[in-house]
Amino acid sequence: MPSCAWERLGEYLHETQLLGSIQSTLYWDQNTAMPKGGSSWRGEQLSLLARLLHRRQSSSQYESLIKEAEKEFQDSCLKGEFELNEKEARQRNLDLLIQDLSRQKCLDPELVAHLAKAKSQGYESWQEAKANNDFKSFQPALSTLISLRKEQAQQLNEPRSCWETLAQPFEPDLSLNRVQELFAPLRTVLPELLDKVRSLDKRKLKKWDLDESLQEKLCNQLLNDWGRDEKITALARSPHPFSTTLGPKDFRITSRVVKGQPLSSFLATAHEWGHSLYEQGLNFQSHQWFSWPLGQATSMALHESQSLFWENRVARSKAFSERFWRYFAEVGAPFDSWKDLWHSMNPLMPGLNRVEADELSYGLHILIRTDLEIALLEDDLPISELPIEWNSRYENLLGLTPQTDSEGCLQDVHWSEGLFGYFPSYLIGHLISAQLSQAMTRALGAQDTDPISTNILIGNESALLNWLRKEVHPHGRKMNAEDLVKKVSGTSLSSDPFISYLKEKLEMLNATS
Amino acid sequence: MPSCAWERLGEYLHETQLLGSIQSTLYWDQNTAMPKGGSSWRGEQLSLLARLLHRRQSSSQYESLIKEAEKEFQDSCLKGEFELNEKEARQRNLDLLIQDLSRQKCLDPELVAHLAKAKSQGYESWQEAKANNDFKSFQPALSTLISLRKEQAQQLNEPRSCWETLAQPFEPDLSLNRVQELFAPLRTVLPELLDKVRSLDKRKLKKWDLDESLQEKLCNQLLNDWGRDEKITALARSPHPFSTTLGPKDFRITSRVVKGQPLSSFLATAHEWGHSLYEQGLNFQSHQWFSWPLGQATSMALHESQSLFWENRVARSKAFSERFWRYFAEVGAPFDSWKDLWHSMNPLMPGLNRVEADELSYGLHILIRTDLEIALLEDDLPISELPIEWNSRYENLLGLTPQTDSEGCLQDVHWSEGLFGYFPSYLIGHLISAQLSQAMTRALGAQDTDPISTNILIGNESALLNWLRKEVHPHGRKMNAEDLVKKVSGTSLSSDPFISYLKEKLEMLNATS
Repeated sequence: MPSCAWERLGEYLHETQLLGSIQSTLYWDQNTAMPKGGSSWRGEQLSLLARLLHRRQSSSQYESLIKEAEKEFQDSCLKGEFELNEKEARQRNLDLLIQDLSRQKCLDPELVAHLAKAKSQGYESWQEAKANNDFKSFQPALSTLISLRKEQAQQLNEPRSCWETLAQPFEPDLSLNRVQELFAPLRTVLPELLDKVRSLDKRKLKKWDLDESLQEKLCNQLLNDWGRDEKITALARSPHPFSTTLGPKDFRITSRVVKGQPLSSFLATAHEWGHSLYEQGLNFQSHQWFSWPLGQATSMALHESQSLFWENRVARSKAFSERFWRYFAEVGAPFDSWKDLWHSMNPLMPGLNRVEADELSYGLHILIRTDLEIALLEDDLPISELPIEWNSRYENLLGLTPQTDSEGCLQDVHWSEGLFGYFPSYLIGHLISAQLSQAMTRALGAQDTDPISTNILIGNESALLNWLRKEVHPHGRKMNAEDLVKKVSGTSLSSDPFISYLKEKLEMLNATS
Repeated sequence: MPSCAWERLGEYLHETQLLGSIQSTLYWDQNTAMPKGGSSWRGEQLSLLARLLHRRQSSSQYESLIKEAEKEFQDSCLKGEFELNEKEARQRNLDLLIQDLSRQKCLDPELVAHLAKAKSQGYESWQEAKANNDFKSFQPALSTLISLRKEQAQQLNEPRSCWETLAQPFEPDLSLNRVQELFAPLRTVLPELLDKVRSLDKRKLKKWDLDESLQEKLCNQLLNDWGRDEKITALARSPHPFSTTLGPKDFRITSRVVKGQPLSSFLATAHEWGHSLYEQGLNFQSHQWFSWPLGQATSMALHESQSLFWENRVARSKAFSERFWRYFAEVGAPFDSWKDLWHSMNPLMPGLNRVEADELSYGLHILIRTDLEIALLEDDLPISELPIEWNSRYENLLGLTPQTDSEGCLQDVHWSEGLFGYFPSYLIGHLISAQLSQAMTRALGAQDTDPISTNILIGNESALLNWLRKEVHPHGRKMNAEDLVKKVSGTSLSSDPFISYLKEKLEMLNATS
């Protein structure tokens, strides 16, 4: 056992990380390889690991290790043993560990057990309700989850509202006021933009499709172009695309092929690769912080900003279609020029489904969910009114009404697992991506007003990645997402860059028909 | 916590099984999906699980649970609470648990740690030595492994020789005398048969190959024909084919495509499927013995007999080629009739490589390894003489001399991980398969003298499987492999059925040219 308390704490965190990554490996296998019959045993394996992890993360041994490391750290500081950078980093690691531990300790283990059970029951009930378009059958499970989450927020006893408290794990330091402030301009601008698009002549989008193996070929071409290192990354298929990190040199992403949507796997690959690049850029490859908070992603919104950057700013850009369309033409896509690919990448048609939404209407889907979950948790919106409220908001904001609850308020998995406070991260991710892109433009463009497009056009995306690797990825939980955006862009996060970007893109799309 | 000691023990075993199956899942992922860069972190995950498992399997809590269950069981027996079957099954479970535990307890934890390290160093050293054809560089690691294994046998202190003690985990109750007795006839018959084949005109085997996707298609056709249930089985690629069970309803097998050997993936699929069928037939689906010894495979030789049955007795049979060759012809194999497929399936050419050997010469590869590992462990054969001894035996028995140690005594992984006493199971598996096939023939054939072929010819392999599921698979560790063979076939295991089978097959092959 190391004599130094800091190292002893590090070893403990290391073992916790090992267990956590085993859990992620089981999840990966479940979604990419496991036959259906394996699900019940897999559930037992995962719940055993969850118990072991919870025990480790709330044990008195762990608490003592943190206290000893803190004491040792303070003694060393008094002796002036650390450089400023190192001192700040260690202090921040300790602060976050103490915060995470005290959250774990606030919770009654009985509540933790109830929540685990309610989540799995909620998920099952939701699956059935969605399949049968039967919201009523899901109501009791949802009601239980909401009560338990409220109870959890109460036990955590933070100087925050219930919804705010629950949003912290996804978006540290986010407040209700801040969400409303960030989203307010979008509530008017997005529907206006959508109206503009609607009133325009619709480009006739051709119906086409591509063989699975050809879609796979294009995805591989994309990842190779973007510098994928096969020694540390693997690709697979899963029902829902995701990205996960299973070890410091083991990154995985998945994609899926959707019949009749030949670009779906391609854009999903770009999206998940963006998530993975963020994780690959975290400061743990050559650094001691793997297993420590500073080696972990700072927020879901920042994570999403990275996936959206590669999906929307790069893969859906005009420059990318100009360069890449010939690969699509080669495998038989019905494209006469890059314009056909570009328009296919950007159909700009509002729909009822969040996951399939494009940049323009995506935000509206999030506004609706955010408002409704706040109403459920803070304003006592009766659960039975959820379908009506959902549908009327879709009518108002998107001009569409779901015909069934399955394509309405039952479409997303999140609430069925008790995830409240998660949805806003998706939209904040759009805002961050836009604001960071402006900063990148300033940084990379000397005479060039649009260095992002210039680099994409010549296949030099590594210039964009290098900037992200330097400015955005390596900080981990050193600062929260908003502080990071301010540090990098010089100004506080706002929705202005996102709105400007959307307006410009619409103009360009209309000018190119 | 259950009030019944038996159930408490069952819960403990269940959790052990969960951990063990997590280990197997990581192993599966490592061989089918993990990028190379993940190996070091994966090693740490596996060693953490090994530590947790060892702790569970040798803990005083576990010992008490067994003692309490034993006491409770004896009390219940006195009260006459069990039917005879149930009583015998419980007694056998307890006996095996006590045996396994006392083995764990005999071992000095320091030796266990040394062995774990020596295994991983041995494996690394072997990989390098094989790549560089440098046996000398591997000698120190092998020497360490042999000393540690000798030490292990001493600590286990069983009334058995060193080699016998080490062979127990693979082949319970096997003795040196018994191995020599079983193998003696093969030492003369196999070389004689090989000579006969050699003196015959060699059939001209065409060189051909098949596209990966077509090989995959044929493998799927095979598994579908053999009744694969996709809900509980999954198939993947790996560098070395294997079969594993990850949960009571989660069976996985892998195969590989070898350039220039278009039948390799097909036969590997048949082989691994045979392993999987045995596990699928163990008595745990509808029974309480999953996690208990009676729900586990009884020996490696019996396991191998099941894979060899499906690979050799079925897939390499004349009847199978007669029925299946048209699928090969359909995808472009250069076959004018079933005879071409059958001869391709049975080239009967002795080679230097065990894994690629056919039914005729396979046994010779095993005789050499068995003799040498016994000499290393019991007769102090100097390690430095291993290459010379290896080569002279290959010259004597197979008429071939390896040109390098890489294709000679460095070819197999087993010794590099300290696995001694494992090799004989492969050959005993051939003997068991032959003897069980005779019993199956008697059981299924009323008027028919060759019901196995008859059923294969009409695609009714399920008749063979049903017999195995009734007579062979469900016993688990209720009895050892030899007792099972005697129970099913009526006579003690011997090499006669295997030798008769080989002679008949050679005659048939010669008659069909």
